[in-house]
Amino acid sequence: MAAGASDDRQELLHLIKDGWFEETQSFWTGQRFSLQVEKVLFHARSAYQDVLLFQSTSYGKVLVLDGVIQATERDEMAYQEMISHLPLFAHLNPRKVLIIGGGDGGVLREVAKHPSIDTIHMCEIDEMVIDVSKEFMSDTLATSYEDPRLTLVVDDAAKFVTQDGHGTYDCIIVDSSDPVGPAEALFEAAFFQSLHKALNPGGIICTQAECQWLHLDFISKVYRACCDIFTEVEYAYTAIPTYPSGQIGFMLLYKGPETSAAEDDGECDDLRPLTSLRVAARLPSAEVQASLKFYNPALHTAAFALPEFARRKLDEARAKVKPRS
Amino acid sequence: MAAGASDDRQELLHLIKDGWFEETQSFWTGQRFSLQVEKVLFHARSAYQDVLLFQSTSYGKVLVLDGVIQATERDEMAYQEMISHLPLFAHLNPRKVLIIGGGDGGVLREVAKHPSIDTIHMCEIDEMVIDVSKEFMSDTLATSYEDPRLTLVVDDAAKFVTQDGHGTYDCIIVDSSDPVGPAEALFEAAFFQSLHKALNPGGIICTQAECQWLHLDFISKVYRACCDIFTEVEYAYTAIPTYPSGQIGFMLLYKGPETSAAEDDGECDDLRPLTSLRVAARLPSAEVQASLKFYNPALHTAAFALPEFARRKLDEARAKVKPRS
Repeated sequence: MAAGASDDRQELLHLIKDGWFEETQSFWTGQRFSLQVEKVLFHARSAYQDVLLFQSTSYGKVLVLDGVIQATERDEMAYQEMISHLPLFAHLNPRKVLIIGGGDGGVLREVAKHPSIDTIHMCEIDEMVIDVSKEFMSDTLATSYEDPRLTLVVDDAAKFVTQDGHGTYDCIIVDSSDPVGPAEALFEAAFFQSLHKALNPGGIICTQAECQWLHLDFISKVYRACCDIFTEVEYAYTAIPTYPSGQIGFMLLYKGPETSAAEDDGECDDLRPLTSLRVAARLPSAEVQASLKFYNPALHTAAFALPEFARRKLDEARAKVKPRS
Repeated sequence: MAAGASDDRQELLHLIKDGWFEETQSFWTGQRFSLQVEKVLFHARSAYQDVLLFQSTSYGKVLVLDGVIQATERDEMAYQEMISHLPLFAHLNPRKVLIIGGGDGGVLREVAKHPSIDTIHMCEIDEMVIDVSKEFMSDTLATSYEDPRLTLVVDDAAKFVTQDGHGTYDCIIVDSSDPVGPAEALFEAAFFQSLHKALNPGGIICTQAECQWLHLDFISKVYRACCDIFTEVEYAYTAIPTYPSGQIGFMLLYKGPETSAAEDDGECDDLRPLTSLRVAARLPSAEVQASLKFYNPALHTAAFALPEFARRKLDEARAKVKPRS
């Protein structure tokens, strides 16, 4: 499975120059992040995307999909811990969890740390990502694929969540790539409607929601669409050096305990529970906290403190939400 | 003053390749950030460093010193507002302020927004940085050099702060470049001792303090040294896409109201004032808040919420501080 065919070599020549991997910039023009390559470990085209794994000189192993960095062993915890523990610690008692995407295994590793969880469903579209991660990063990212609570499905998540019998999740974590390529459907209103249906009342969703420095208009659009569907909608973010502009955001979505979107009366703020998503509803046990390198309860709240330029933009989007009838 | 001499062209060829400025990586190996160049506006070597200013395709004008990005018009507010307003809003009534470095004028622009301030001293070592900023960025960064409260001194700050008659500052903001080259002395214990002397009791210092992702050992060393000198020492940070790893930190230093280092008895935590640096002591007026693109009081507190890996490291450093006798 290692790079060998001449097509692959051409692709590699395009991505790696003079020993440096240069990230593709179609979604963020005029800026470029590069990592020095020690050795290419894997390169192939799956049914969905270009999959590259290399050993870097200073960031451990690096997983790249369609020319965009997905995870490096040095800083992946900033993303995996935050996208997982923001919804899980905002929930009082998560028992059944759905992971969408996350083929590298990092979100699964974090979800598996919660003893209250008895059922983990995971739906990843690209089996090659899972296989590569299991083969090369079994001690760092893909540590928990043997967890007995896990049911792994290789399928299109947009299809998976509309199927009968998959409802009643307490938390859903959408660890998607950018909304170009295979993950495009995971940012559309229809998908969020499906997620809302798949969620238990009182349930919480956390989705990868792009970078406020680069795609604030896009975030604002998704935010507003979610305000039409969910009881509480919040935008949070984490620092992560190897993602574009050093940051990635999350949309946190709450389905009220005694209501559904159709029954809501008033703006999405009206039904905000007393404990907002901005505050951890539970503290990590000493054992779990000791296993974390990034998340802690103070950082949970800090993740929702937006810079003025973003706060204003999302406040404007919220103000435009029509009262439901 | 524009690039012209053959030496400068050689230097430029080194910094700009195929229309992209590639940042020099001596202080962060294996990773590289690049910006696309539209036009070089200025390039020369000053008495202290290589000074480059270019128009980028997507970040406005970009100031580069010794190959390292100092400010881009698109994201500079994240740095300038936080390094200025963290100490100024943590202080109840700042009247006399010293800016060290900050030749681009951005910190001065933010300091000048505080109506309580009647005296601003600024000490920048490199006049070329001031001149370039005034010539090319008078409407964005260098907006406040005509402020009647300003006394501008072109000198070595390490020397300036030891001179008689310069004491009694309420706030000191140290907007330095990295501790390689002209700013090296601004990270040494002797300099922090001088700053402590130059500060009023109850005064607050904020210094540029590198990135926790890249230089945590260095930060920890400076942090510990400051704990020996100041009543309260805190590390905060801001997101800024065009700085290495997308983030930069600040050391916030508080000199207790009724004490000096020599008189302290106990660890640096013992004399923490009721209102810690982590909370804004005053709220921005509506007018000032409207002028801000980044800082707000919620972000003030969030800036001190460290990821676990950094929190643990600085807690260890603090635990090693010897009680003063």
